[in-house]
Amino acid sequence: MRRLPPDHYIAGIRAGDRLVLSRAITLVESQLESDQALAVAVLEQVLPQTGRSVRVGITGVPGVGKSTFIEAFGKHLTDSGKKVAVLAIDPTSQRSHGSILGDKTRMETLSMDPRAYIRPTPSGGSLGGVANKTRETMLLCEAAGFEVILIETVGVGQSETLVHGMVDFFLLLMLAGAGDELQGMKRGIMELADAIAITKADGDNAAAAERARLDYQNALHLFPPASTSWTPPVLTCSALQNQGITDLWQIITDHQTQLTQNGHRDRNRQQQNLDWLHSTIRQQLETRFYNQPGLRERLTDVEEAVRKGAVLPLQGARRLLNFAPQSPEGQAAGAGF
Amino acid sequence: MRRLPPDHYIAGIRAGDRLVLSRAITLVESQLESDQALAVAVLEQVLPQTGRSVRVGITGVPGVGKSTFIEAFGKHLTDSGKKVAVLAIDPTSQRSHGSILGDKTRMETLSMDPRAYIRPTPSGGSLGGVANKTRETMLLCEAAGFEVILIETVGVGQSETLVHGMVDFFLLLMLAGAGDELQGMKRGIMELADAIAITKADGDNAAAAERARLDYQNALHLFPPASTSWTPPVLTCSALQNQGITDLWQIITDHQTQLTQNGHRDRNRQQQNLDWLHSTIRQQLETRFYNQPGLRERLTDVEEAVRKGAVLPLQGARRLLNFAPQSPEGQAAGAGF
Repeated sequence: MRRLPPDHYIAGIRAGDRLVLSRAITLVESQLESDQALAVAVLEQVLPQTGRSVRVGITGVPGVGKSTFIEAFGKHLTDSGKKVAVLAIDPTSQRSHGSILGDKTRMETLSMDPRAYIRPTPSGGSLGGVANKTRETMLLCEAAGFEVILIETVGVGQSETLVHGMVDFFLLLMLAGAGDELQGMKRGIMELADAIAITKADGDNAAAAERARLDYQNALHLFPPASTSWTPPVLTCSALQNQGITDLWQIITDHQTQLTQNGHRDRNRQQQNLDWLHSTIRQQLETRFYNQPGLRERLTDVEEAVRKGAVLPLQGARRLLNFAPQSPEGQAAGAGF
Repeated sequence: MRRLPPDHYIAGIRAGDRLVLSRAITLVESQLESDQALAVAVLEQVLPQTGRSVRVGITGVPGVGKSTFIEAFGKHLTDSGKKVAVLAIDPTSQRSHGSILGDKTRMETLSMDPRAYIRPTPSGGSLGGVANKTRETMLLCEAAGFEVILIETVGVGQSETLVHGMVDFFLLLMLAGAGDELQGMKRGIMELADAIAITKADGDNAAAAERARLDYQNALHLFPPASTSWTPPVLTCSALQNQGITDLWQIITDHQTQLTQNGHRDRNRQQQNLDWLHSTIRQQLETRFYNQPGLRERLTDVEEAVRKGAVLPLQGARRLLNFAPQSPEGQAAGAGF
């Protein structure tokens, strides 16, 4: 696709032009160096227009009804006049992203909504790389005037902490009846949730959902409290019966108010920015190192010896670091900016 | 202190000579490059004698009675003929380490026990650096014939995941009555525990401890199950009345048996070795980068701009990476091996 001059992207995004927004996101997602330079130029200019949205992360194991929930939740927000963007992190995704309207088989109503913007998951690249793309996409959406950003995790057990590190509010969707369906959920995630919503609380499942709500509510009291003094509530919801959706938005609003007042919201975002800086540096250093010619082959041998306990990890690391002293040229080639 | 030839360390460690062991650990903890080279030489030679201990991580907030618990638990093990080493991770510690017998104000009985070896926390250095020292110390202790290694976390909220990443069994000590005393416990830690022990379950506190046990037991059922199919038990214990101590060792033994049989113990250790390799590489790359002359000052400026949202983290990272292209000389100087 033909690229525009930076000013066209910037003006289009500020005007809320969805087509330009999509094309700017394509730049962000591109692996081409020229595209990435253009993306950074655009992002730097719109930076003052970012940061005004409520950033909500939504996670839950497959089968919990994430898409259905987001559709109902997003519709509730757009019905009340809010502009909503739905993004996703899927580190395992290999599928291409082309459609501007997003994955049409999911969130069919929301994707037709003029106040909603759904962007399919960027594919490929490293875990950290994919997270950065989502972060930058979030900034572009904010600059385009979207007031609520919903970032969903796709895939299991990898992206939850990444999403938690880029949002103001982290929502965990759960099914009634603990047990097998939790398999695949990363341990430690429950304790990061700012709220837990038990989904599919309708029909035959309503009573079980209410029991689960009480169980989780009791369990959360035993958790270490967040430093923000926020107590994560547990509620039931039904996308089918449109129940609990309004309550949830109220909870998020209360959370934002409380944390804005006590200063934790700003402090959290500042810390997230610093973490992003240092994780980017780390990623770049590792990319440069591991992409050095010949290193991968040597790495395989060292990993095998280390795994078996035949070589000390410290010694293995030293061998790899000494094997391939980085030259400035080698670094520039692998920089990836 | 005068250094010995490598063979003296190796022979002494293999013979279980505690004085030589302590001197070898001093090498591991030293910041001197010559000491570190000697430490690696020793470690490589004793590597075949390592890996045979049961590695137990013990964590809990200050006030939970960690030292008292470890003293009682360690004594139980030495009484049954086991050789026990007690190590600690304290990334925040700045105090020096000199005494071979350890911090004598703590664990007074255990420190006099000929079957026990208590090593005070290594101080200083980065979080990852301190962790590596503890890992290597653990290997030296194993080579010296210690059959149970207890690694306790010191300090709050930083070292728990590090300890979890280097042990076979992760024990969380908790107080009865959830609430304020959990403040400072890192979120996500409860879900990593292989067992939870409610401490100080004696006297007036016994009933509350039993209630807490039931509460946590119920709560743990709601957690995502471990991939190992191990269900973390919750028990009460009293170091004062020597209650629960035997049960806990039985639990750890059962855990080891089950995970050895289903292959998870070996797989876990292999994965830990690989993680150790890659975290060492990451640490080295970061040490080299951040130690470049002039970088720290520049970093302060960039961090400030990024924190305020005036500069994109990606752009800030790029500035720092471009500001100081690493020369092979610069790397070697900061290598720290």
